[in-house]
Amino acid sequence: MRQSTLATKTLREAPKDEESVNSILLTRAGFIDKLAAGIYSFLPLGLAVLRKIENIIREEMLLIGGQEILMPALQPKENWDKTGRWNNFDALLKLKAFGDKDFALGATHEEVISPLAKKLVLSYKDLPFALFQIQTKFRNEARAKSGLLRGREFSMKDLYSFHTSQEDLDNYYKQTTTAYFKIFERCGLGEKTYLTAAGGGSFSKYSHEFQTVSEAGEDTIFICDNCKKFAINKEIKAETPACPACGGMGFKEARAIEIGNIFKLGAKYSAPFDLKFKDQNGQEQNVIMGCYGIGPGRVMGTIVEISHDDKGIIWPENIAPYKYHLIALGDDANVKKEADALYEKLTKENLEVLYDDRSLPAGQKFAEADLIGLPYRLVVSAKTLKEKSVELKKRDAAKTELVELSKIVQALK
Amino acid sequence: MRQSTLATKTLREAPKDEESVNSILLTRAGFIDKLAAGIYSFLPLGLAVLRKIENIIREEMLLIGGQEILMPALQPKENWDKTGRWNNFDALLKLKAFGDKDFALGATHEEVISPLAKKLVLSYKDLPFALFQIQTKFRNEARAKSGLLRGREFSMKDLYSFHTSQEDLDNYYKQTTTAYFKIFERCGLGEKTYLTAAGGGSFSKYSHEFQTVSEAGEDTIFICDNCKKFAINKEIKAETPACPACGGMGFKEARAIEIGNIFKLGAKYSAPFDLKFKDQNGQEQNVIMGCYGIGPGRVMGTIVEISHDDKGIIWPENIAPYKYHLIALGDDANVKKEADALYEKLTKENLEVLYDDRSLPAGQKFAEADLIGLPYRLVVSAKTLKEKSVELKKRDAAKTELVELSKIVQALK
Repeated sequence: MRQSTLATKTLREAPKDEESVNSILLTRAGFIDKLAAGIYSFLPLGLAVLRKIENIIREEMLLIGGQEILMPALQPKENWDKTGRWNNFDALLKLKAFGDKDFALGATHEEVISPLAKKLVLSYKDLPFALFQIQTKFRNEARAKSGLLRGREFSMKDLYSFHTSQEDLDNYYKQTTTAYFKIFERCGLGEKTYLTAAGGGSFSKYSHEFQTVSEAGEDTIFICDNCKKFAINKEIKAETPACPACGGMGFKEARAIEIGNIFKLGAKYSAPFDLKFKDQNGQEQNVIMGCYGIGPGRVMGTIVEISHDDKGIIWPENIAPYKYHLIALGDDANVKKEADALYEKLTKENLEVLYDDRSLPAGQKFAEADLIGLPYRLVVSAKTLKEKSVELKKRDAAKTELVELSKIVQALK
Repeated sequence: MRQSTLATKTLREAPKDEESVNSILLTRAGFIDKLAAGIYSFLPLGLAVLRKIENIIREEMLLIGGQEILMPALQPKENWDKTGRWNNFDALLKLKAFGDKDFALGATHEEVISPLAKKLVLSYKDLPFALFQIQTKFRNEARAKSGLLRGREFSMKDLYSFHTSQEDLDNYYKQTTTAYFKIFERCGLGEKTYLTAAGGGSFSKYSHEFQTVSEAGEDTIFICDNCKKFAINKEIKAETPACPACGGMGFKEARAIEIGNIFKLGAKYSAPFDLKFKDQNGQEQNVIMGCYGIGPGRVMGTIVEISHDDKGIIWPENIAPYKYHLIALGDDANVKKEADALYEKLTKENLEVLYDDRSLPAGQKFAEADLIGLPYRLVVSAKTLKEKSVELKKRDAAKTELVELSKIVQALK
């Protein structure tokens, strides 16, 4: 993509109405644009990042047998009455529509997927299965000052699994846990993310959160000093003195961002919707459910929170909107010609290149490149061309290296 | 995909609460599921079709320089007040949220993209550009009995273009028209779709609709007998006696479905949002806009309306969720083994195969295959294996042919 045609403008100053690091940097770098508190547009660079995160999540969901569907945002009140959540789900947005009927804007989809699954399940032979969607959720959040970390409208991946027994659910729950760690690893969040015991609700002792250590987090967790892999959310720390994974009693307190959560639901939602199956003896039983959420936008915000410096964002390679930022310096015709040729060459090799072909001072181009934060910077200038070379620099490294133009494709691959 | 694990159940009977051909067939075949009138979930087969249509649209939008973004559904009242549409847009859904503030659920996005574009445009050098999204729209439709043809919540591609002059807009408008015909061609709707003059509004004499001839349509159009390419919508027929394309005076009346529309907006939305640019003389001018819509779900419904028979849907090859329906007949172990092997072989060749590996009577499998409507059916049975062959049949052909197993990959490619 030629930056001269890219629909984006970077800002030198932080926007006045943003407080969080992620929204300040993403707005300044031209990835997102705020429409209202907690409600953002994604510009081309921002949407590219969001789609990369969504695709990583999608791939891992397919690998554990998830089948992708798409459910509506508009959900009839009757469905929410059945589970008793119409009046008890605090963040539920409601509206009157279509002749004064009551609808919720989907904050979650148990009230839609349970009656939907009922149409797919007759007997134990139809189980287990798992359905997921990547879809827009709405929540009436009182506080929306954390940029992409807490949106009022946001992209969410929600997976729901359906089983004949608690044992089968337990098994799938473990598979999902592994898949979640693979997702966060691929998004560059692996090292700082802890499986965290949290309040469980009706069916199991705990639910589990995936918490990424960051000062921007709203949660406080206690990381086990012994196994160093497991944590406990502060909300249940008093009644959970020992690490549920290893029994360790020493902990380190940390602020963290909840980037995923998984729940064993049991029959909590299948029972009200009469979602049953006939077992091998012809007896009707409640279907046992699990649900598993990740917010791709929140993951995006979290990456920015933990991966930036005072110059801008530092995108992990898997997530960056483009992997390379090619910069032509100066208005020398030969520089332009060689940079154009290099851009065409790299693009033909299917390398993802953002090409800064604009007539701007070097300092401004470098500052914008650091702000946008692509993993590798390639500079073509009169100086590098004297050496028949291009200057290569990693976003988070201090040193640069000259690579011969004839060898650059090889070097990058 | 093995059909034994696919999350779908077909229905023998039409659902009681559906009237339209598209919703009856898509529901029976397990592509969609109705949550409320005009509000559907897309099951795995249905989402696969929707994504194929969306991807065709996306490819053609990128080819005419569109850059993809994503805007919110929740839109503040202030934005709609600025254009005077808060009270004048009939189908606008409204709600109170976040401390009693008024929001619209986006029925269209001029009120979001215009202030957004203002941040991207300073001078004539920043123009032209075009932004599009594929996103969920909401409309308070009084009548929602046409399945995917008229949804209350539906996927929409909306492209917006920004120009320095009417001339530049006119030029891009033509490019978009060509791109739209390519899209509908690729979706199998090319032959029955007419560029149709419709009411223009404030800036141009006409807007243009893309109308597909079908008895299920809500519109009446008059197709020019002379050029046979252009039509006039009934709503403006009285004041438009001659074909605007060729001047012809003879017309054929037809019912049609509006599957796309394009508008020259001029400064209608740029003016209220003060979306201006500095021209070459340093003078401020209003940005000139165009907007261009296609509903992927409506395209999907239209394909079903014009491409089905009494047995079920007949998907065009580009749009089908899978291209091949492989069916193993009977419980013979050798049939199962050979069909399994063929499924693995075709899948390895990246051919899209739905594999009916279930233990069901032949009649039921054939009936379901016709209902689902994949372009090619492949049958493996004891009879075909005697000839070391597989039986190949096109969905809309009467005759079958035997193809040797060793030659089938070649034959399909």
